[in-house]
Amino acid sequence: MKTVDLNCDLGESFGAYKLGRDEEMLKYVTSANIACGFHAGDPATMRRTVRLALDNGVALGAHPGLQDLIGFGRRDMDIAPDEAYDLVVYQLGALWGFVRAEGARLQHVKAHGSLYNMAARQAGLANAIAEAVYRVDPSLILFGLAGSELILAGERIGLRTASEVFSDRTYQSDGSLTPRRLPDSIIDDEERSLAQVVRMVADGMVLTQQQVDVAIRADTICVHGDGTNAVELAGKIRSKLVEAGIKVQAIGAALAASGEGR
Amino acid sequence: MKTVDLNCDLGESFGAYKLGRDEEMLKYVTSANIACGFHAGDPATMRRTVRLALDNGVALGAHPGLQDLIGFGRRDMDIAPDEAYDLVVYQLGALWGFVRAEGARLQHVKAHGSLYNMAARQAGLANAIAEAVYRVDPSLILFGLAGSELILAGERIGLRTASEVFSDRTYQSDGSLTPRRLPDSIIDDEERSLAQVVRMVADGMVLTQQQVDVAIRADTICVHGDGTNAVELAGKIRSKLVEAGIKVQAIGAALAASGEGR
Amino acid sequence: MKTVDLNCDLGESFGAYKLGRDEEMLKYVTSANIACGFHAGDPATMRRTVRLALDNGVALGAHPGLQDLIGFGRRDMDIAPDEAYDLVVYQLGALWGFVRAEGARLQHVKAHGSLYNMAARQAGLANAIAEAVYRVDPSLILFGLAGSELILAGERIGLRTASEVFSDRTYQSDGSLTPRRLPDSIIDDEERSLAQVVRMVADGMVLTQQQVDVAIRADTICVHGDGTNAVELAGKIRSKLVEAGIKVQAIGAALAASGEGR
Amino acid sequence: MKTVDLNCDLGESFGAYKLGRDEEMLKYVTSANIACGFHAGDPATMRRTVRLALDNGVALGAHPGLQDLIGFGRRDMDIAPDEAYDLVVYQLGALWGFVRAEGARLQHVKAHGSLYNMAARQAGLANAIAEAVYRVDPSLILFGLAGSELILAGERIGLRTASEVFSDRTYQSDGSLTPRRLPDSIIDDEERSLAQVVRMVADGMVLTQQQVDVAIRADTICVHGDGTNAVELAGKIRSKLVEAGIKVQAIGAALAASGEGR
Repeated sequence: MKTVDLNCDLGESFGAYKLGRDEEMLKYVTSANIACGFHAGDPATMRRTVRLALDNGVALGAHPGLQDLIGFGRRDMDIAPDEAYDLVVYQLGALWGFVRAEGARLQHVKAHGSLYNMAARQAGLANAIAEAVYRVDPSLILFGLAGSELILAGERIGLRTASEVFSDRTYQSDGSLTPRRLPDSIIDDEERSLAQVVRMVADGMVLTQQQVDVAIRADTICVHGDGTNAVELAGKIRSKLVEAGIKVQAIGAALAASGEGR
Repeated sequence: MKTVDLNCDLGESFGAYKLGRDEEMLKYVTSANIACGFHAGDPATMRRTVRLALDNGVALGAHPGLQDLIGFGRRDMDIAPDEAYDLVVYQLGALWGFVRAEGARLQHVKAHGSLYNMAARQAGLANAIAEAVYRVDPSLILFGLAGSELILAGERIGLRTASEVFSDRTYQSDGSLTPRRLPDSIIDDEERSLAQVVRMVADGMVLTQQQVDVAIRADTICVHGDGTNAVELAGKIRSKLVEAGIKVQAIGAALAASGEGR
Repeated sequence: MKTVDLNCDLGESFGAYKLGRDEEMLKYVTSANIACGFHAGDPATMRRTVRLALDNGVALGAHPGLQDLIGFGRRDMDIAPDEAYDLVVYQLGALWGFVRAEGARLQHVKAHGSLYNMAARQAGLANAIAEAVYRVDPSLILFGLAGSELILAGERIGLRTASEVFSDRTYQSDGSLTPRRLPDSIIDDEERSLAQVVRMVADGMVLTQQQVDVAIRADTICVHGDGTNAVELAGKIRSKLVEAGIKVQAIGAALAASGEGR
Repeated sequence: MKTVDLNCDLGESFGAYKLGRDEEMLKYVTSANIACGFHAGDPATMRRTVRLALDNGVALGAHPGLQDLIGFGRRDMDIAPDEAYDLVVYQLGALWGFVRAEGARLQHVKAHGSLYNMAARQAGLANAIAEAVYRVDPSLILFGLAGSELILAGERIGLRTASEVFSDRTYQSDGSLTPRRLPDSIIDDEERSLAQVVRMVADGMVLTQQQVDVAIRADTICVHGDGTNAVELAGKIRSKLVEAGIKVQAIGAALAASGEGR
């Protein structure tokens, strides 16, 4: 039986500022990427989000980002690999504090925004992030864009990895995402989006913008937590997957069941 | 044989800003209180300081402070116990990341500046800090001002504690430090300072400003890392203690030797 | 004819975080207190808010706060008068940049949250804030709690001041606000709230919690921008005032009309 | 008689962190670029630096940078022109507050670090910065790398500009600086450095790395404030210029004398 993980960015509130419909999203996803205070999130939000995810049986992950609160970690910065290593160790450790305080365990690490995108393309950053995760805890699962440098770096160092796909983005023939600045980069049509995600998981294939089928690995699906109908869409994605005979479960449990667990 | 620990605040640089003579201080102290990025320190500095302390065989501690970089964590803030809990868990976790990445262990937690002072007097903050440390790792040693609410809170929750004394501060008959705003709060005379610290450790007594002897517990001595002759003074304190037949060693090792270790 | 100003805190969004219904509130108020980036607000939000207020004919004011984004400037901090002076000059100048870039003028300064409350009671902070405003621009109007140290400090140094009252707070016989931690500090009943505010403006009197009438000066009324029915309440306050024959206009215009303008 | 301005980055301390030998540098330079709190500097440091510069008769300039304290504004960030506009208006305004509080005037604006470098190459950022300066105060002088997009943008919008040259950097035949990652980008030899700077001012020519003479405009010379012998070098540069019959004075005074003043 095919299985897939559904992950979502959560805990992105900051002080008086509230963002996201975390309580509702946690009904549908299986892995939570919890902001760690650099691009979003604050200590109180981290504590609450860890507890909320545990209450909902959702696996816990650190979601480290660039130190750019005002830009929400979405502006590329010219950081050195050492700096990427340091900011991942710091943020991963900080979230670990809250996880440990609840007597729970971390499952994974997913870089946020520009850090994720830069590490998908730049091997130096990718290696630094993979090394940071490995040295803090080699049993953690490293999330990355399917086919990216980050996934390669994780495999090289000996981490378990989860290849991530997007339901609402179109793909290029080399397996990369169509850049957002280009037309047709976003799939607005819900049916087409749902069909794409089921096919990626069930068949390991995606029809690219060039109308060519390419192979893609889909261990985990990114479900957006913002947007007006985010919760509804998450529910539909989950339903469609189940209808297609796919088991939706946290990646850590899936890897353990398949004998890759630690 | 009497033993005592020498601790110092380290890793207080930030980005391009350098502070302290860490490499030299690490020759004399036995426990390092490493800043965690809120009142001082940054991820790169934390990484380097952890490595430097390990290279010198100095035990590692987290030194969490108020989120007030511009005030160096020295301005009292009206924070709730929950907020104190959260900022200790966060910073302790962040430092733990670097310690774990080096394959090492944390020995202790010492609150910084205003957080330390407020928690010495306010039971609510003290309990919150002790709970934060305990929930993250009950084997950690909690540092606090001798006779303070923080030491009491640590004992109540079941943590091992280290009562801290100061070589360069005068004491009141209730065992508290003379407030800095009062005259004679600081001991400028080096001989008097050295004599006080040896007596606190050897005899467990201190002559207060009121010229009365009171009992004091001296598990660890705070050695300042800033000031023009900080390193020299640290060396003299260590020499004087050794001359007096006192063994200078990290508090964790001392507690382990005495059967209180875990 | 009696006149009164209606002021509201605006521009409190930060990066990806949105707060407040600024566009709607600007239909009802006459003075905007614009956050300056320390407790809330960011440069882009400041630019947009200045433009939005100008589009609505609302007078512009700086709303400096403590450097505590995570606490929204609502946690008391033990800052020295010099520090208060510096943070007011900095934030007031920063907002002035955007005001000047639009070819407009600043009308007033209102301290935010804890800075406002501390300066209401502490003469040292009050003098420092008044001096900061005066030295940057002596034609600015200083807002402060009616009867507070801040109003006195403004008058002492030669600034025009605006005494502020609250529609939804109860008062004590010494003219101070009932502390929030006490029962009956907030007026939940809308009719009572509206009646109080009209009476303060029309008669210069308020019935205190002790059931005694005391005199109060009401140059400007604080209208809250958050809360589910904030906009509706602002509309009702304005209507009630107009019904009572009171002219609602910006304090600067009112002072100019009365001959106090510069 | 030829004239030239000597400018230096000052006021780069932050809270407890001290940087630079500002008091000594102010004996030699004629224009101060004062950090505005984003990449360095804090409100108290800004106040002190403005006063110190005034005491030394040195002209005042704003030195806005990227919001990256940990990286000292030296890491390129992918910011949009709007964001550059906003951060210049904000920081320029903030410094203006302190300048105005001292009853003084601002002379110029010089972008810092990565913002300076990016605006030298990217017309979009250059235009945004020039517009920010112009809208806040069209009488300000915009500093920029000689021959850069920033100088062009300043001229286009109608600002007076000051073309900046470096004594310790080698040049390419297109007038650009040799990138720091290339060999021979820095001139270590003091005599060669002094000779280059005098020739740039006296003759308007520089010998490039390609051993070709190219024309260069040298209105102001950047003198570094950090480095072990920064103050000594600043003194030598000034002496050499005077020996060569060049008058060293603030750019604003020079432009006024030449009829370009406002």
